[in-house]
Amino acid sequence: MTTRYLEIRQGVLSKNDRLAAELRERFARAGLLVANLVSSPGAGKTALLERLLAELRAAGWRVAAVVGDLQTDNDARRLARSGAPVRQITTDGMCHLEVDLVTDKLADWDLGALDFLFIENVGNLVCPTWYDLGEDVRMVLLSVTEGEDKPLKYPVMFNSSDVAVITKLDLAAACECDLAAMRENIRSVQPNARIFETSARTGAGLSELIGFLVQQRQAKRNGQ
Amino acid sequence: MTTRYLEIRQGVLSKNDRLAAELRERFARAGLLVANLVSSPGAGKTALLERLLAELRAAGWRVAAVVGDLQTDNDARRLARSGAPVRQITTDGMCHLEVDLVTDKLADWDLGALDFLFIENVGNLVCPTWYDLGEDVRMVLLSVTEGEDKPLKYPVMFNSSDVAVITKLDLAAACECDLAAMRENIRSVQPNARIFETSARTGAGLSELIGFLVQQRQAKRNGQ
Repeated sequence: MTTRYLEIRQGVLSKNDRLAAELRERFARAGLLVANLVSSPGAGKTALLERLLAELRAAGWRVAAVVGDLQTDNDARRLARSGAPVRQITTDGMCHLEVDLVTDKLADWDLGALDFLFIENVGNLVCPTWYDLGEDVRMVLLSVTEGEDKPLKYPVMFNSSDVAVITKLDLAAACECDLAAMRENIRSVQPNARIFETSARTGAGLSELIGFLVQQRQAKRNGQ
Repeated sequence: MTTRYLEIRQGVLSKNDRLAAELRERFARAGLLVANLVSSPGAGKTALLERLLAELRAAGWRVAAVVGDLQTDNDARRLARSGAPVRQITTDGMCHLEVDLVTDKLADWDLGALDFLFIENVGNLVCPTWYDLGEDVRMVLLSVTEGEDKPLKYPVMFNSSDVAVITKLDLAAACECDLAAMRENIRSVQPNARIFETSARTGAGLSELIGFLVQQRQAKRNGQ
């Protein structure tokens, strides 16, 4: 890539960072916790979110989601079945969400009426790394079907995430996934990651993940 | 994105296209068939290639591979066990292969001594779409664990591919994959795609895929 290309790419990023800082302040004033979900296509972001939205709502929390995809509004329609407000961003071919798309989509939302907002990014283990969306928690999902070595091969995404959620735990035996090796590979590129092992199908690990999110929201409101 | 950013991005692409045309001519003179394998991270490109390299070699074909990853040379080491010559390209964070990286890696190779060259791209269902690597066949892999709707959500990658290889067929029942729906979704965005259903674990579908590749090589050499 040419130097000029890189300079302009950096310009796009610094504009994104500035807008993300503004959005993060808006989120802080509203007192809600915001999570940005990133992963490969098909790692199970939507399936996990379906469960998180339903279970958080059942516990009395006010939740919403914004969903990014290159094309289709399949995910928004699927998530809306939980009863939570859900909006779709269609990136029309762009491989990641940028913060201005999120800001536009939230323009007329009363964020003060929410406890949790989930942003489901485009399925891509590389490009969303660089685009801060103003989130409090970046959550990378990794399914047991993808192989234990993905954190080593895509280290920047794992290193920039606060939480790693191993998904499709119910398929671990069928695809001979070595969970200990997977956890060790996550820790080798991001020693501080909180790791959860989940299955959206069986519900395994969801209460631990929800407990963590609730605790993070409380800590944020207490200014910790 | 700014207009200026887009203009420069187009500049990078047109340079890539020019270099890809040159490399394609070099491949044609050498008379080998070149396939570019693209997919999500963890869809099974390396596992499929392990089988293809081993089975093509066993049938007397001269095969080689070039493997792209952000980091690690795990895949090259894994593929080299087949006995075929394999070289690793480490993109150092770049989300796709560009043709100059491939050209550099092939500079001192005698392509005339090969029948097939496989290029394993970085795992990404979006960005590699735009970068022609001079290949004859673009092969997109989609594992049964990723969900039937991926072709609809990532249509440009499927539309730009000649062949769609459904992988991990042995897990189809465990993850309740509707194969008919998956095929229909592939066809809806790429009506001309040749679709193969495979399992690198059981070997299902590999002989059909190999038969197709051998036939494509023959057609290329006959100038069809």
